[in-house]
Amino acid sequence: MKEIERLYDRIIQRVNIDLRELEFEVNPYVQELIPLVQMVKFYAFYGISPHLPPHFQFCNSNLAGSYFLGRCKVTDSLLYKSDIRGDELKKKGDLFRYLDYDMQVGDDEEIEIRNSLLIKTLVHNYSHDPETLEKFFITDTISMNYANIHGSPSSGCFLGAFATVDLTTMRNCVIGNFSYIQASEISHINIESGTIWIRNPGRFNFFYRHNPEKINDYIYVTPGAAPQGLFVDFIEDRKEAFQRIFDSVHIEQPVPVPNNASLDRFAVTKGQTHIGENVLVAQRAFLQNSWLGQGANAQENCFIINSRLEGCNVTAHGAKICEADLGRNVFVGFNSFLRGRPDARLSIGDDTIVMPHTIIDSKEPLEIPPGRLVWGMIRDRADLETNSIAIDDFSAIDSSASIGDLFFEGSGAQFISAFKDRIRHILQANGAFFNGSEQKGHAQKNQHISFNTIQPYPEGMKKGLFPTILIEP
Amino acid sequence: MKEIERLYDRIIQRVNIDLRELEFEVNPYVQELIPLVQMVKFYAFYGISPHLPPHFQFCNSNLAGSYFLGRCKVTDSLLYKSDIRGDELKKKGDLFRYLDYDMQVGDDEEIEIRNSLLIKTLVHNYSHDPETLEKFFITDTISMNYANIHGSPSSGCFLGAFATVDLTTMRNCVIGNFSYIQASEISHINIESGTIWIRNPGRFNFFYRHNPEKINDYIYVTPGAAPQGLFVDFIEDRKEAFQRIFDSVHIEQPVPVPNNASLDRFAVTKGQTHIGENVLVAQRAFLQNSWLGQGANAQENCFIINSRLEGCNVTAHGAKICEADLGRNVFVGFNSFLRGRPDARLSIGDDTIVMPHTIIDSKEPLEIPPGRLVWGMIRDRADLETNSIAIDDFSAIDSSASIGDLFFEGSGAQFISAFKDRIRHILQANGAFFNGSEQKGHAQKNQHISFNTIQPYPEGMKKGLFPTILIEP
Repeated sequence: MKEIERLYDRIIQRVNIDLRELEFEVNPYVQELIPLVQMVKFYAFYGISPHLPPHFQFCNSNLAGSYFLGRCKVTDSLLYKSDIRGDELKKKGDLFRYLDYDMQVGDDEEIEIRNSLLIKTLVHNYSHDPETLEKFFITDTISMNYANIHGSPSSGCFLGAFATVDLTTMRNCVIGNFSYIQASEISHINIESGTIWIRNPGRFNFFYRHNPEKINDYIYVTPGAAPQGLFVDFIEDRKEAFQRIFDSVHIEQPVPVPNNASLDRFAVTKGQTHIGENVLVAQRAFLQNSWLGQGANAQENCFIINSRLEGCNVTAHGAKICEADLGRNVFVGFNSFLRGRPDARLSIGDDTIVMPHTIIDSKEPLEIPPGRLVWGMIRDRADLETNSIAIDDFSAIDSSASIGDLFFEGSGAQFISAFKDRIRHILQANGAFFNGSEQKGHAQKNQHISFNTIQPYPEGMKKGLFPTILIEP
Repeated sequence: MKEIERLYDRIIQRVNIDLRELEFEVNPYVQELIPLVQMVKFYAFYGISPHLPPHFQFCNSNLAGSYFLGRCKVTDSLLYKSDIRGDELKKKGDLFRYLDYDMQVGDDEEIEIRNSLLIKTLVHNYSHDPETLEKFFITDTISMNYANIHGSPSSGCFLGAFATVDLTTMRNCVIGNFSYIQASEISHINIESGTIWIRNPGRFNFFYRHNPEKINDYIYVTPGAAPQGLFVDFIEDRKEAFQRIFDSVHIEQPVPVPNNASLDRFAVTKGQTHIGENVLVAQRAFLQNSWLGQGANAQENCFIINSRLEGCNVTAHGAKICEADLGRNVFVGFNSFLRGRPDARLSIGDDTIVMPHTIIDSKEPLEIPPGRLVWGMIRDRADLETNSIAIDDFSAIDSSASIGDLFFEGSGAQFISAFKDRIRHILQANGAFFNGSEQKGHAQKNQHISFNTIQPYPEGMKKGLFPTILIEP
């Protein structure tokens, strides 16, 4: 076990050095957090699909419980139960449009994870950084439970639990728990917990911060202990259902799946669950007694329980939806927590955008009309007034506006248009618009993936480390 | 599926060319034998252990259901449910004694399988060829169900079902069904089915051929069809028990295992089975209601049912023992079939050597006294007279002897001494003599092995082929 301990210490040291200007020490957050002995227990796995000729390179790392898809290189790192999805990497020769430039991608893009520690983190590669088209890097970075690193190259950073960084290149930053950042490029900043910040320089700036006291009920981190709170309890309560899935080599499809849809074999489905046409259910998604209409997608680590989603719904990575009825084209952003009650259901009208990291947790029935933009924390009808607006009204903002605790500046129309473009891209990439021959997406391409499993040395000096593994087509 | 079909055809073509002088065409034996679609169904797996730093290289091959341990390279080959065990490969710098020479091994030895088709074949690498110390090659070779390629480099050969080649380098040979060959080096010969031939040039020559009519009850091959007969039925009847083992990621140890013994997680144990100290049970061994005394080993594809083995027993690859009581130090050779009946048990005294490919299948109780050499086919007490001899008497042969259908020439003493040395080596290598600190063998070293699984492309042109995989320590 000697070598893995050395590696652990070295990663911590390097991240500390990178964050010295911010006077941030990662030690209390990661020390003792994962007993290294846990890291010997779980197999990692990678997907083999003709749509993504496999290029993997794993070297001097532990990958316990992690999943890999698409071109990826992991060196000197510890990845614990993380999902690394490289299925939207750019290809050699692709044209990348940035402002007025058409940039040619010089080589097949690759995810490179080096000297990093990712715990239950989702990495998805849809990166927009024109400065690093061929390499999606995650170096000297520590990322905590249920964080999302989404299209966001990162160097020398610390991400708290349930944090999301989206389409943002980060250098030497700290991202607080449950913060959502989409800001192109950030450097040397420490972002407080519960911050929702979306910035497109010169166009718009969207800023909201969750009330620190209220947010503690949902996610709370004490140095030296694992993250606590309702989010953690919610996931822990449902952990066992995944056990069976990971313990079996072959899983029978538990519910009917149309031949243009896909249900990942590492997803959980319980009770009466309906999978519609062109639906994508990703690995580690949890579905219970729910109805997914045509073109809906349920992304990694999401939970959809006792709910009905009419169609073309995006349920982003880590989002949770309980006792709710969602119309068509409802978008639910990363790590959002939408909870109705059996006797007080939540209903959301068509074309509504629920911003990432939104909490809707009402004990009274709540009805959100169609076409709304919704953000922040909503625990009753009064909160809904200050935390939502008709999308058309938001589009009319042309310089700035304060709505409840939200501060927005710039063009509301550009903000809404950017968001809608993004949602369309997500639906398209996931195969929602497949017509039987064109517009194939993940829902169609992921139907046949083989999974190979890998394990570390079971004893000796290298105990817990995986051998060096290279996979080529 | 295109590429795997081309590969299949190319292997057949090359083996046919290599065997043209013998006027042997392999087509009728392998054509349609494995529907290629089966080859997409099973995962292959390889072991990771600090005792055998992993070196694997798999390239343009299908490996369905196969197992790999130790340094191994597979190129342009189809391996279906085969066991490739490279745990006794020579190491760089080892001294290899051959006649009066001490030869230094120049590099770590490696198993190299190229342009070959192995179906349910066991490959074990304990090779003695002084001409190829660093490479254990299997090229342009087709090997059928339950054949054993044991320490036998092979080029341009065809092995029939249940054939065994042991410590023999082969070039352009055909080995008939259920033949056992141990002959140092052979070239351009076609060996009839049921031949037992052990030759040490200049020292001894042991030759027996099973009666072709009688052997047909046990193993029978019609061109164009899968092998048939009692051996096949026997295995097929017990196939399902392996299903559960291969479908689960984690297997609870079904019976107590002493901490100096090992029971492979891919072995089957049923009923009241006892595993003694220093016992080794290899993958794909099948144990039912049996007692394995101290230092016994149960090798790949062996079956031990309702039997008691007192200790230091070798049950070699593919051997089957039912309703029998075996004393200490009883050796049962490759693919032997020993069947007593519940009301007519078979008993075998201490220190008896049951030659490879022996069939003892008696409906009356049969008692073999201690210290016998036993061979051929024994179906009643009369057969026992012509197919066994006291080891001491055999040792006394100094020029030649005919006993029943057995022809022997050379030194009986040298033959027995070579056999006993071999048995001692097997027990030692398997850890039978471990004293708590010294003489570790497979029984002790195999306790902690991680298994990684690999699968082929699930669709597309490369359907059924595995991606290129390189594993280094």
